Amino acid sequence: MASMRNDLEPFFKPRHIAIVGVTRSESGFGGMSFLQKLQEASFPGTLYCINPKATEIRGLPAYPNLSSLPLVPDLAMVCVAAAHVPAVLEECGRIGIRYIHILTSGFKEIGTEQGRQLEEQIAFIAKEKGLLIIGPNCMGPYCPASGLTAWGAIPGAPGPLGVISESGSITQRLTEYAYSLGIGTDKAVSVGNGTVLNSLDFLEFMGQDEGIRVIALYIESMRDGRRFFDLVRGINKRKPIIAWKGGKTEVGARTATSHTGGMAGEQMIWEAVFRQTGVIQVSSLDEWMDAVSAFALLPPPGSRGVFLIGGGGGTSVVSSDTCIHEGLDVPSPSSATMKKLRETVPAVGSIAGNPLDDWQTFVNPAYFGAILDLVCREPAMGMVIVSRLISRKAFHTSSLPDSIPETIEQVKQRENRKPVVFVVDSEGGDPELAAQGASLRAEFGRGGIPAYPSVKRAARALIHLYRYYKRLDQINILRVIQER
Amino acid sequence: MASMRNDLEPFFKPRHIAIVGVTRSESGFGGMSFLQKLQEASFPGTLYCINPKATEIRGLPAYPNLSSLPLVPDLAMVCVAAAHVPAVLEECGRIGIRYIHILTSGFKEIGTEQGRQLEEQIAFIAKEKGLLIIGPNCMGPYCPASGLTAWGAIPGAPGPLGVISESGSITQRLTEYAYSLGIGTDKAVSVGNGTVLNSLDFLEFMGQDEGIRVIALYIESMRDGRRFFDLVRGINKRKPIIAWKGGKTEVGARTATSHTGGMAGEQMIWEAVFRQTGVIQVSSLDEWMDAVSAFALLPPPGSRGVFLIGGGGGTSVVSSDTCIHEGLDVPSPSSATMKKLRETVPAVGSIAGNPLDDWQTFVNPAYFGAILDLVCREPAMGMVIVSRLISRKAFHTSSLPDSIPETIEQVKQRENRKPVVFVVDSEGGDPELAAQGASLRAEFGRGGIPAYPSVKRAARALIHLYRYYKRLDQINILRVIQER
Repeated sequence: MASMRNDLEPFFKPRHIAIVGVTRSESGFGGMSFLQKLQEASFPGTLYCINPKATEIRGLPAYPNLSSLPLVPDLAMVCVAAAHVPAVLEECGRIGIRYIHILTSGFKEIGTEQGRQLEEQIAFIAKEKGLLIIGPNCMGPYCPASGLTAWGAIPGAPGPLGVISESGSITQRLTEYAYSLGIGTDKAVSVGNGTVLNSLDFLEFMGQDEGIRVIALYIESMRDGRRFFDLVRGINKRKPIIAWKGGKTEVGARTATSHTGGMAGEQMIWEAVFRQTGVIQVSSLDEWMDAVSAFALLPPPGSRGVFLIGGGGGTSVVSSDTCIHEGLDVPSPSSATMKKLRETVPAVGSIAGNPLDDWQTFVNPAYFGAILDLVCREPAMGMVIVSRLISRKAFHTSSLPDSIPETIEQVKQRENRKPVVFVVDSEGGDPELAAQGASLRAEFGRGGIPAYPSVKRAARALIHLYRYYKRLDQINILRVIQER
Repeated sequence: MASMRNDLEPFFKPRHIAIVGVTRSESGFGGMSFLQKLQEASFPGTLYCINPKATEIRGLPAYPNLSSLPLVPDLAMVCVAAAHVPAVLEECGRIGIRYIHILTSGFKEIGTEQGRQLEEQIAFIAKEKGLLIIGPNCMGPYCPASGLTAWGAIPGAPGPLGVISESGSITQRLTEYAYSLGIGTDKAVSVGNGTVLNSLDFLEFMGQDEGIRVIALYIESMRDGRRFFDLVRGINKRKPIIAWKGGKTEVGARTATSHTGGMAGEQMIWEAVFRQTGVIQVSSLDEWMDAVSAFALLPPPGSRGVFLIGGGGGTSVVSSDTCIHEGLDVPSPSSATMKKLRETVPAVGSIAGNPLDDWQTFVNPAYFGAILDLVCREPAMGMVIVSRLISRKAFHTSSLPDSIPETIEQVKQRENRKPVVFVVDSEGGDPELAAQGASLRAEFGRGGIPAYPSVKRAARALIHLYRYYKRLDQINILRVIQER
């Protein structure tokens, strides 16, 4: 499909969508749920339902087949049973629908001879008719800016994120997660079995897409190692690729084969590719999302040193341990800064230094801003983690004053100077606390500041950020030397 | 204090408590907040407030000093400023109060000469008068069964957990966390600077306390390595000690010194002690709590193999990776089991095997029970992780039927056969989802089944469980061989 790689944009901006295979029952998953979600999200284009047994579905006229439509749609979403898919593709070819997403499962991934043959038919018809196909066995394209949110959180929000994934549920969860934290998605695609168009085609496409600043990639199989290597090496210098490799272990790989029908590559080769290309490697949904928010929202850090503003004595101790364990430094402040801290930090019940344990930073935004200024002057402090207190039953504070808007303002005033992230740790098993913590983190996120549920997750996101930009610096220095 | 180590029980069962230093202002932290919490929790004994400037506080008569009380209290909680603490201790000695908790900070931990001298005075008076003292600079004792919950979640619940900690906030958070998940605490103590009684004294005490089945220990400093080694080696054979060492890194240790005034021991020595004694080592609050619930609720696993019941194709792939990364196995089912699975698991959209991806396990408790029976028959499957689906905006299920009570019942019917845990992953930034997930996990917890927010955390808890019992088995086998 090499000649068509730059031609994928229309998948994400359809004005006329045909959904092939919409049942009349409102429950269940498939064409009907796509129709429901697109209607709920007020898709601005036209939706055509294909169902030979219906005349009307959810207020829209239904058509017996694609050929009877009043026009040629830009995109067909194919949701009929696997055995009927080849006939639908033939019809697409006949009437000139080039962009097709196949949701249907039951091909190579189920391991039967029939499944394998059906998938070969898809590839054959696509080649013969010049069809561009996403799938089968996947959730397909997603683009909030054009109202294309057949799956995913409603309302979708546009933003700097591009997502390419070989798992539908994982794609859905990441886009939903990003939306909840105030980070929008430019385009996402779940590629499934990748019979015609695969992850690499969309990687190449998103690498050139100027609206996308951060690429999140979930990949299980390696089909063309050389192309993968060249692509990620080139793109990762311009925009960070945050990759989650599923099927790292033998069992995971065995499961991956039943999942998307691809053979999982050898983990050692993957490791080498990730290392040599500088791709950011993560291994869980949380770590993926955490890195995405760091790269989407933060400036490059100047050093690996972190200034910790902690919440309590024991917490300060273990937060330092955690940061260092994750690869950050927790440097001592200079004597000038220590002198200033000792002037304002209470001697009893607080700790002046790094970590700084001083309740005034939580209740007095101006004081917090002054501390940030102190930190910004110290070259050794490349980043700041603020472990935000939260009211708890177990603590003696019934409530803390809501100084978050002013606190966000203090950080924004110093924007682009040093990365500042918050930790709102609301774990503790209590549902009310869990909701409160998620709300506070989302409030920071919507304010443009990453907020994490633990110091460990904040530190992991920041070390990814640090290493990525450090490597870019080294590449640039090398280039300058070579160009002399 | 060697002769008094077995004499610590009265700290946790006081009938008459004097709170020394109760301000008249209802806000803030200190004697007043202790009084409030004890009153709110309906402490069944008598509370005496000491304040020379008041005659009545929150409906109770106030007394100018301990000597003017109508009787000698079992426990004094000292909350006056540091400089006044020695005089209060002298008075305790004079009138015969032996059990004392000092909340006050401002001693060795602040690093001043005055602080150091005041702390030496505490030690001196204690020795001279034969006082048993918890603190200073700590939250002190906690025992829900006797209504002693001057701090901590309300209502406290009795249960199998013992907590010993050198951080007040960390102790509070663990007991609150355990309560929220349905696991009660028998006794907890925050020891602070440990001037008179330290962590090891309480470790020895809780090791002999029959009500305590699991000990959670947060420790920063090592004062008597030999005693620590001997104690944990002996106790850990009878009941698991789950230890979190704060101040693992140089910076953490530096902070620990300002926190509880103790010098943090060398990490290498700690590692050796943990390894040789088989103490379960954790490094975050979540991991600590996760291990506590596993040990409190689960039978010993027979092997390190885990049977995964997953939630989606991609999730099954990465769950396998995660379990293996944490040290578990994900063995293939026997051919007899595979035959049975293939008969019932749908070919399209599901995966028969290990992991098992089959939506029927979530909606049909009897079917889930039949799967458990299959697993229980396989010696290679030592444990079960069920990754429970949760309704999400991004998914097409608007709601799932609530089959949790029946699902819990299915597990309980097979209790003591194999450890079964659930994962309810509600991360995704959405406050409502976060609350819903926490509620579901708590529902499982109250049903006696551990439920974790991620496969990673479940796997980590289970590998701790497996390794602990595996080591006990080896010790027992060795003993049998030696006794022959």
